[in-house]
Amino acid sequence: MAKAICPGTFDPVTNGHLDIIERAAHVFDQVFVVVFRNPAKAPMFEIDERLSMLREAVGHLPNVILDSSDGLLVEYAAQAGASVLVKGLRAVSDFEYEFQMALMNKKLAPDIETMFFATAAEYSYLSSSMVKMLAGFGASVRGLVPPGVESRLLQRGRGQGNPAQLEG
Amino acid sequence: MAKAICPGTFDPVTNGHLDIIERAAHVFDQVFVVVFRNPAKAPMFEIDERLSMLREAVGHLPNVILDSSDGLLVEYAAQAGASVLVKGLRAVSDFEYEFQMALMNKKLAPDIETMFFATAAEYSYLSSSMVKMLAGFGASVRGLVPPGVESRLLQRGRGQGNPAQLEG
Amino acid sequence: MAKAICPGTFDPVTNGHLDIIERAAHVFDQVFVVVFRNPAKAPMFEIDERLSMLREAVGHLPNVILDSSDGLLVEYAAQAGASVLVKGLRAVSDFEYEFQMALMNKKLAPDIETMFFATAAEYSYLSSSMVKMLAGFGASVRGLVPPGVESRLLQRGRGQGNPAQLEG
Amino acid sequence: MAKAICPGTFDPVTNGHLDIIERAAHVFDQVFVVVFRNPAKAPMFEIDERLSMLREAVGHLPNVILDSSDGLLVEYAAQAGASVLVKGLRAVSDFEYEFQMALMNKKLAPDIETMFFATAAEYSYLSSSMVKMLAGFGASVRGLVPPGVESRLLQRGRGQGNPAQLEG
Amino acid sequence: MAKAICPGTFDPVTNGHLDIIERAAHVFDQVFVVVFRNPAKAPMFEIDERLSMLREAVGHLPNVILDSSDGLLVEYAAQAGASVLVKGLRAVSDFEYEFQMALMNKKLAPDIETMFFATAAEYSYLSSSMVKMLAGFGASVRGLVPPGVESRLLQRGRGQGNPAQLEG
Amino acid sequence: MAKAICPGTFDPVTNGHLDIIERAAHVFDQVFVVVFRNPAKAPMFEIDERLSMLREAVGHLPNVILDSSDGLLVEYAAQAGASVLVKGLRAVSDFEYEFQMALMNKKLAPDIETMFFATAAEYSYLSSSMVKMLAGFGASVRGLVPPGVESRLLQRGRGQGNPAQLEG
Repeated sequence: MAKAICPGTFDPVTNGHLDIIERAAHVFDQVFVVVFRNPAKAPMFEIDERLSMLREAVGHLPNVILDSSDGLLVEYAAQAGASVLVKGLRAVSDFEYEFQMALMNKKLAPDIETMFFATAAEYSYLSSSMVKMLAGFGASVRGLVPPGVESRLLQRGRGQGNPAQLEG
Repeated sequence: MAKAICPGTFDPVTNGHLDIIERAAHVFDQVFVVVFRNPAKAPMFEIDERLSMLREAVGHLPNVILDSSDGLLVEYAAQAGASVLVKGLRAVSDFEYEFQMALMNKKLAPDIETMFFATAAEYSYLSSSMVKMLAGFGASVRGLVPPGVESRLLQRGRGQGNPAQLEG
Repeated sequence: MAKAICPGTFDPVTNGHLDIIERAAHVFDQVFVVVFRNPAKAPMFEIDERLSMLREAVGHLPNVILDSSDGLLVEYAAQAGASVLVKGLRAVSDFEYEFQMALMNKKLAPDIETMFFATAAEYSYLSSSMVKMLAGFGASVRGLVPPGVESRLLQRGRGQGNPAQLEG
Repeated sequence: MAKAICPGTFDPVTNGHLDIIERAAHVFDQVFVVVFRNPAKAPMFEIDERLSMLREAVGHLPNVILDSSDGLLVEYAAQAGASVLVKGLRAVSDFEYEFQMALMNKKLAPDIETMFFATAAEYSYLSSSMVKMLAGFGASVRGLVPPGVESRLLQRGRGQGNPAQLEG
Repeated sequence: MAKAICPGTFDPVTNGHLDIIERAAHVFDQVFVVVFRNPAKAPMFEIDERLSMLREAVGHLPNVILDSSDGLLVEYAAQAGASVLVKGLRAVSDFEYEFQMALMNKKLAPDIETMFFATAAEYSYLSSSMVKMLAGFGASVRGLVPPGVESRLLQRGRGQGNPAQLEG
Repeated sequence: MAKAICPGTFDPVTNGHLDIIERAAHVFDQVFVVVFRNPAKAPMFEIDERLSMLREAVGHLPNVILDSSDGLLVEYAAQAGASVLVKGLRAVSDFEYEFQMALMNKKLAPDIETMFFATAAEYSYLSSSMVKMLAGFGASVRGLVPPGVESRLLQRGRGQGNPAQLEG
């Protein structure tokens, strides 16, 4: 029985994440969706709240299991008996970073494979950061995130963001 | 009458920005050059000083209007009656980020178009960050920025910078 | 009055081309859609037939003029009084080729600017070659091309194509 | 039971292909390796000979089935009851082409998913074209292809190739 | 004494090639500029004529030796006692192709290194193909190629070319 | 006598760095390996400790000289009499950043050339950041760094890291 893992920060989950999770659930027998901390940036939502939003969004998928971890991804996979790590690729920059991670994870755990989906065209510009930026400006995020995420973002209210840089 | 917006942080304006602004002023009837805050990094120059440097640099362009904003770019465009957002693209990494922004802005405001210029080859390596790094080392920035920016950078004096990383 | 040119092979026109043409017609006062021969590959449709298909597809756009040319693009633009060449960018490989062309055209005619639109996400995988390949397999191209193009492709019948290479 | 397809031209199969096939056979219950014609270039080996070389190379994988087809990939997948198309990605140029194909195949057959492996680092420079070029110069291809392919290439003898272009 | 090789098709030599050759001649003690056939496309100029044009263009560089070869690049290097292959990189697509070639050449001859220069910004859009296309349209190539190449291209007269594709 | 510089942060030196240094030492008469501060991120090791680790790792290379600097790279090169800056390129993102730096350094010091090696395939996923992340999780870094670096990382003990982001 092939088990797969969809790892992520999910801060918050977007419709782009959901699309990847649904496709993984269609291909594999069991899919673990695992929330990891991203030590590189302060989160907007705590791990528990991210799990709640995921729970509302993937409730219709019987072969999806939610979890969180602060360990090494390949160790989690080994303990869960999962042989595949599933990622979505949107763009060339994703590609390079994810390939480095895949090659490194292959070195750490040669029996665990990373497999990639091409992100659906309609979500190619979508990321959690983009969603938080829009919500920070008070712009609508309808259609970009599940309803439960939208309402939580509205509660947080306007924040900061700048979609206007001409330079890097 | 087609109106366009050249948004940016302009911290400070470079000759690469000026080239884009001049080309936009050649194509469109009216061009708004709008300074936005970049909440992701602490600026070197305050918004007012950035506007002063822009004012000196674009004074020869009668159809250019300077402004600043801390709102959402597409909302500014709608209020100004501008139908086009103009950006310069230097490299593949610009391309991917700017495409995500363009697709997102299209979703937020379907009637406002983002259009791109290819940055002139001689400015392909130029950015505000590069200019600040050079000035921080006491290196000359002549030919990279307008004269008024050069003198202001000289006043700031030597700072920090490192053009030497072998790794990411 | 700002005039723009949408150049292309249009063999045949796709809905991706139409989207770019419509957006150009929204931004500029007059848009010349000009069919060029592509000497690098044998066409499926003659120039006249490509123009017919375009005529059916852009009839609703009063400020669009159709034409064909076998000369140099920037010379056509100069004679037409157009100051802007409009291209759509789908992907990084487009970006590099189109940037080379834009820089070269700028050298040949410094007063004529190339401006780019980001292709709509839903057309990011669409090209005339892809459409011809699908039609060659007898697969439906509905939603990818205008109706008049679809019927002409059906008349041509099944041909050759291979969407299956694992290698370059 | 999850079935997958590894499509390709396999003219000839390389160790890079084999690595992808072995990893697919590790993840999925049944893997169809299907030889397609590439109408864009004249093959070195006939389909039958390509299948022979594959047979020798994947004999140790009990859940791999060899076949050939001149139809549409997604139609083959539907008839075989396979829900996944498996591809290897080596580089950014692969990525863009394969993403276009994946999005198009998703449109043609929404229930069939394309999934990608990152090519192993040691095969990142390897392709059938490269192998044929080396063999054409009489250079050794040991370690790049299975032994049966190496001996067949030696029989063909020296041909043509040029690993030396400075320009595109 | 470090010897290097600048390999290429040089059909014809451009100012971009010359810039790379001059920089190699500045860094290395001796530089072999070697004309290879490109079996993938029919040349405009015979090898002898390409060598004549190179001879006129690099006459001022005493440590440059001209030659031609139809063998394997690394074998030529070994016979010439050269330890470095020098290439210019213009863009991401160059990068990927040249990296594949470099890794393959490293496998064939581990003691021979490939080193890359970043093409000067002003030549980033320049290639022999671009030059031939321009000349084919009767457009000026002054400043893009050495004078001797310009006059030979003028003798050939107008040919074919199309700088106008909207699609791939 | 051709002298080259291998600049870097080396926090800490990896086997990927060593491979570049060894290849530079094979091509050039003298190679300065120079440790620069990276003001953009807090280092794990002090400059002195980074130099110690380098000293252990390059002791077998008689023509390598170790040094550190907090000045401008091209000024260091001029004072050392070095005409070449040597960098390793792993991926497209490296390529773009390093090309910007190379073009800028060429502007600052036209007589100093930047030359690039293609990183060996087996190190294409390797960086100091990756090594620190692995060590932070308690994962083995054997084969990725010299032995002296491995033991120092073990002394530092477990830290933070997250190889699991699904999003950017």
